[in-house]
Amino acid sequence: MDRKEARALAEKLVAQMTLEEAAGQLSFRAPAIERLGIPSYDWWNEALHGVARAGMATMFPQAIGMAATFDPELIEQLGDVAATEGRAKYNAASRHGDTDIYKGLTFWSPNINIFRDPRWGRGQETFGEDPMLTGEMGAAYVRGLQGDGPVMKASACAKHFAVHSGPEDLRHEFDAKASAKDMAETYLPAFEKLVREAKVESVMGAYNRTNGEPCCASSALMDFLRNQWGFEGHFVSDCWAIRDFHEGHHVTENAVESAAMAINAGCDLNCGCSYEKLVTAVRVGLADESKVRESAVRLFTTRYMLGILGEGSEYDNIPYTVVECDEHLEAAEKAAREACVLLKNDGMLPLDMDKIRTLGVIGPNADSISSLIGNYHGTSSRYITVQTGIQDALEGKARVLCSVGCHLYKDRVDGLSACRDDRLAEALTVAENSDAVILVVGLDETLEGEQGDTSNPYGSADKRDLFLPESQRRMMDAVLAVGKPTTIVLLAGSAIDLGEAGEKADAVLLGWYPGARGGKAIADLLLGKASPSGKLPVTFYRNEQLAGMPEFTDYSMKGRTYRYFAHEVLYPFGYGLTYGDASVCSAVLEQKDGKPVVRIEAENAGDMDTDEVVEIYVQNEGSSFAPLNPRLCAFKRIRIPAHGTWTGTVPVDPRHFLVVDEDGHRTQDGKVVLYAGMGQPDARTAALTGHKAVPVKTM
Amino acid sequence: MDRKEARALAEKLVAQMTLEEAAGQLSFRAPAIERLGIPSYDWWNEALHGVARAGMATMFPQAIGMAATFDPELIEQLGDVAATEGRAKYNAASRHGDTDIYKGLTFWSPNINIFRDPRWGRGQETFGEDPMLTGEMGAAYVRGLQGDGPVMKASACAKHFAVHSGPEDLRHEFDAKASAKDMAETYLPAFEKLVREAKVESVMGAYNRTNGEPCCASSALMDFLRNQWGFEGHFVSDCWAIRDFHEGHHVTENAVESAAMAINAGCDLNCGCSYEKLVTAVRVGLADESKVRESAVRLFTTRYMLGILGEGSEYDNIPYTVVECDEHLEAAEKAAREACVLLKNDGMLPLDMDKIRTLGVIGPNADSISSLIGNYHGTSSRYITVQTGIQDALEGKARVLCSVGCHLYKDRVDGLSACRDDRLAEALTVAENSDAVILVVGLDETLEGEQGDTSNPYGSADKRDLFLPESQRRMMDAVLAVGKPTTIVLLAGSAIDLGEAGEKADAVLLGWYPGARGGKAIADLLLGKASPSGKLPVTFYRNEQLAGMPEFTDYSMKGRTYRYFAHEVLYPFGYGLTYGDASVCSAVLEQKDGKPVVRIEAENAGDMDTDEVVEIYVQNEGSSFAPLNPRLCAFKRIRIPAHGTWTGTVPVDPRHFLVVDEDGHRTQDGKVVLYAGMGQPDARTAALTGHKAVPVKTM
Repeated sequence: MDRKEARALAEKLVAQMTLEEAAGQLSFRAPAIERLGIPSYDWWNEALHGVARAGMATMFPQAIGMAATFDPELIEQLGDVAATEGRAKYNAASRHGDTDIYKGLTFWSPNINIFRDPRWGRGQETFGEDPMLTGEMGAAYVRGLQGDGPVMKASACAKHFAVHSGPEDLRHEFDAKASAKDMAETYLPAFEKLVREAKVESVMGAYNRTNGEPCCASSALMDFLRNQWGFEGHFVSDCWAIRDFHEGHHVTENAVESAAMAINAGCDLNCGCSYEKLVTAVRVGLADESKVRESAVRLFTTRYMLGILGEGSEYDNIPYTVVECDEHLEAAEKAAREACVLLKNDGMLPLDMDKIRTLGVIGPNADSISSLIGNYHGTSSRYITVQTGIQDALEGKARVLCSVGCHLYKDRVDGLSACRDDRLAEALTVAENSDAVILVVGLDETLEGEQGDTSNPYGSADKRDLFLPESQRRMMDAVLAVGKPTTIVLLAGSAIDLGEAGEKADAVLLGWYPGARGGKAIADLLLGKASPSGKLPVTFYRNEQLAGMPEFTDYSMKGRTYRYFAHEVLYPFGYGLTYGDASVCSAVLEQKDGKPVVRIEAENAGDMDTDEVVEIYVQNEGSSFAPLNPRLCAFKRIRIPAHGTWTGTVPVDPRHFLVVDEDGHRTQDGKVVLYAGMGQPDARTAALTGHKAVPVKTM
Repeated sequence: MDRKEARALAEKLVAQMTLEEAAGQLSFRAPAIERLGIPSYDWWNEALHGVARAGMATMFPQAIGMAATFDPELIEQLGDVAATEGRAKYNAASRHGDTDIYKGLTFWSPNINIFRDPRWGRGQETFGEDPMLTGEMGAAYVRGLQGDGPVMKASACAKHFAVHSGPEDLRHEFDAKASAKDMAETYLPAFEKLVREAKVESVMGAYNRTNGEPCCASSALMDFLRNQWGFEGHFVSDCWAIRDFHEGHHVTENAVESAAMAINAGCDLNCGCSYEKLVTAVRVGLADESKVRESAVRLFTTRYMLGILGEGSEYDNIPYTVVECDEHLEAAEKAAREACVLLKNDGMLPLDMDKIRTLGVIGPNADSISSLIGNYHGTSSRYITVQTGIQDALEGKARVLCSVGCHLYKDRVDGLSACRDDRLAEALTVAENSDAVILVVGLDETLEGEQGDTSNPYGSADKRDLFLPESQRRMMDAVLAVGKPTTIVLLAGSAIDLGEAGEKADAVLLGWYPGARGGKAIADLLLGKASPSGKLPVTFYRNEQLAGMPEFTDYSMKGRTYRYFAHEVLYPFGYGLTYGDASVCSAVLEQKDGKPVVRIEAENAGDMDTDEVVEIYVQNEGSSFAPLNPRLCAFKRIRIPAHGTWTGTVPVDPRHFLVVDEDGHRTQDGKVVLYAGMGQPDARTAALTGHKAVPVKTM
């Protein structure tokens, strides 16, 4: 059912409602209206990386890992997996009369905020620091979630609109100040793309204010959304964000005023309880009844488009057995494999099991389910930790010795221990008895996450710095000092500086939070059953570089992310090694069907087949509006066999050749120069990867 | 090194110490005395079911499950596994200079208290409700732990001496009142056996008072131990139990008096900090210095006997690689298999996988690691839950659908849910889509356990009743109402009344807390790769029968346990089905090498090989001193092939033919009558098992 038809039905339905009935539908737990045949519906559901919080579901890598795949086709498939399982679960719940939270088809995903500061606890939920990559991955996930059928498969939601990325502990009172240029260049493009191109059905307003206005009632933001981009879906507040108007932001005096402010601005749906005051707000003349009815129409339009009011759809026949079916699990496993980023490899990986009779697996994340799943996750019927994955892969082939090594962040595992580091003797003994060691370290959602959800010892859900907790640093240093060939597997959702341990380790594989069975994918990569191919969607800074960066509360992009950072970093955006030895041999800008493409010839001089990612960056030489460094404008995941080549084209959207002036207008300026390569093709990355950056020739 | 030799060395060493030095050695964290070449030593270690709290170790079923094996040979092997791994871990820790808690060789295990009330949270730590079974299993574990070499492999500890079994929340102030008959007949025999026969090196005093005296300074109890039974090892207080003297029991005024009272009574070692006052107690004349020195001598005797002072031993060469080696893991798995008790089987088990294409696995314990491990546990390098075990076994053979079904005890899984039972729709859907259902329910150490350790919603670590939490009862009833063939797998450490669900289910398999990889053993049993053979070491009462039992605080045995309970119960002590159809055909009391044995002829009329347990009970007919019902006096685990027979003898200790009079003296009285069978051979059990009870003929 198209939007026009759905809206006509919605208008007809809402016209029959009293004000009270219509207003009641604007809260996330929308009650039934029996006289109109409307069932109750809870709008709150989550599918950040698979259906979340609703029982069993296929769990993908955390969003930041999905971004690292640089594989929009796969991400679109994952969106479809989530929508399909969401449908199956919705069908099952509905049949049993369960219309509770997390049982609906309106998923408040993806999170397309820009991961501008490496300390942000919720950065793991995003597609990274780059607007172009975020837009591509976000749009792909939305396409997958919503489908392209006559009925919308599920409703996706672009959040948090807009300019939202920490600090977590200030979010209910904070005013993010962003220039017109930063808005247009960094904070808004992904939202615009999801609205205009992916036709995302919903947009969620952020907790904070942006440039003075609370995001859930911002005339400036709503103007972009409704007027400039033509958004026709529904707008939902973040949860209890409208209450923040009077309790945190103090832009209103009370709940009635807050509700009125939000509805008048066009916030259709309230996650929270502020809209219980809507009828009062209308009665006292603060809110316009027509606004209430318009929002109700938008919400029922979505329900009709989902086919969950009225005649139903083919999706009603999706059986429960699709949940965690082999096809879905394989897609998640593929994503986990593609997400892992090989940061360092001094010839240690893949492990040569001809030389390893005993493998030590050490670290607090080695057998940690929590470090597989990140936040906003579902439940898996099976978890495969890194330790389990390695055990499975080596069963009958080598002995695997294990030690937790240390607590994730406390100074001892057992509270009764008289000394700190009470598992260190075990860890050292394991290392001494092993031919090689895998150190599995990092964070989990108790250490980086969302305000209120974490038990972060640093006092908020954000990271204090880029180092791992001291317990892990001491353990890593001690185990590395044993001197065995050592690989670090890092499970975290953000930039981490491993410090000396990272320098001393023979290899470092970044697994993000790889999903419920991510340990299998990681074991496959460690053992060379597949080649790593993920690329960093965020810059990995050196910890000391934090000191030179803008304050966490400063939303200016100057000095932030690879586009604006002036110094050599630990590992740059777009970086990631493989077990192959691939590089771009030549790159030529051509026209294909009237659109620009870059024709690439690439070769793999290595002995292993591998996926790679061709990344194309653009710079506007001589333009004062251009960001400091070349910026991603196109990319394509390819596969190159060992000692083979790949030839093909990578489409480039010429809008990326524009720069943004100080007023936020896109304009042509400077000389457009393109570079193509594997990994970010600048001199610094070239030195790290050993690959040349190739200037793109213009025909 | 024998005790005499060790004691001579200890006396020589202690003679060189100042009072302060000697007194300092009587606290569990004994400091180094460098001038005498004595390293620091922490006496506190645990090995209730494998080495606990010290990192990786092979984890056996919880003690109550070990008891259910009725297999002392296996339990002795498990004790040796724990001692061997303890040695390997001690060697590793020592090499790294780590002498912290849980790193020593003095294991405060086993717990041989009598599980007299089914509500006791720590009942899971015991070998059940029967003194004879407890003594046999406890002695076997001690033999395994201590070994029979010239050097003691590890030091075991019989705890908690004596008359200790809840309520947990009163333990620091409670006075257990036990008659002389109950002491001699029920509470003390296992302690006596472990001291006299198994030569247990250590005894731990309980928190509570017994008949007015605090157990860690009881002249009555110490008289049994040292004078009547000849105990020569060391006596340790429960942790901070001496502080309870003045803070809980109010038998002293302050810490100095408490320390004096304990040392004067012969409590050699203080787990806690009360003995920091020992020197003061001597100085003010409350304590005798010779007592301090005697206790120090006993403690150093143990250390010399362990070979950890002086010349060392062959055990110093036990390599770390024995930890979780295949042989140890196999012993643990065997124990898990033997521990499971098949409570009910209406032909449902073993599962006929020719008829099952989809199997539903539902319940809060299905994928719960916590429900595998019980309390006082180590860490496993791998956990196999029931769900994982089933998935592994059915991979490629059948689809496994899963649902947590409900929270373990809360009314909803997700706190934001508006309605309770927020996973019920999923559970029902799984059942509807399955050909058969496995419901995995029960408790874990958060619901039954030790005071202070649990998050028990009922306000203490003990159970309030014998039912599962309401969340699970509602879920079970609803899933059973779907009508699919359903097996309940119950994971709990004590008697549970499943209520209607138990009646409606087609089969009930009790897995206890089966250990880290217990899910594999349970899957093997469900699928018929082995036959269940465990027997109940405790009576499974109907919940309503609690009302007729003595108060939890009443330590009189009248009306408690199978020996004194007058009514038909849900499942009696000694009960347990198999997939065979075995029964005793004839039983004859004979003499063999001058000792009584019962010659058994048994047959298995069934189609499956199985282990069985021949249980022999004795009654003294006509004796007013005899317990109400026949009592276990001998048992033997046997293996009978399908359609085969077993013939052999079961030794009987004639001391079990004696009864205990009101003064606590053992005496001959009444006519001794023996019964032999599989499962407790009385009329009620016979009806449940379909097996005859066979009177033992006397030649």
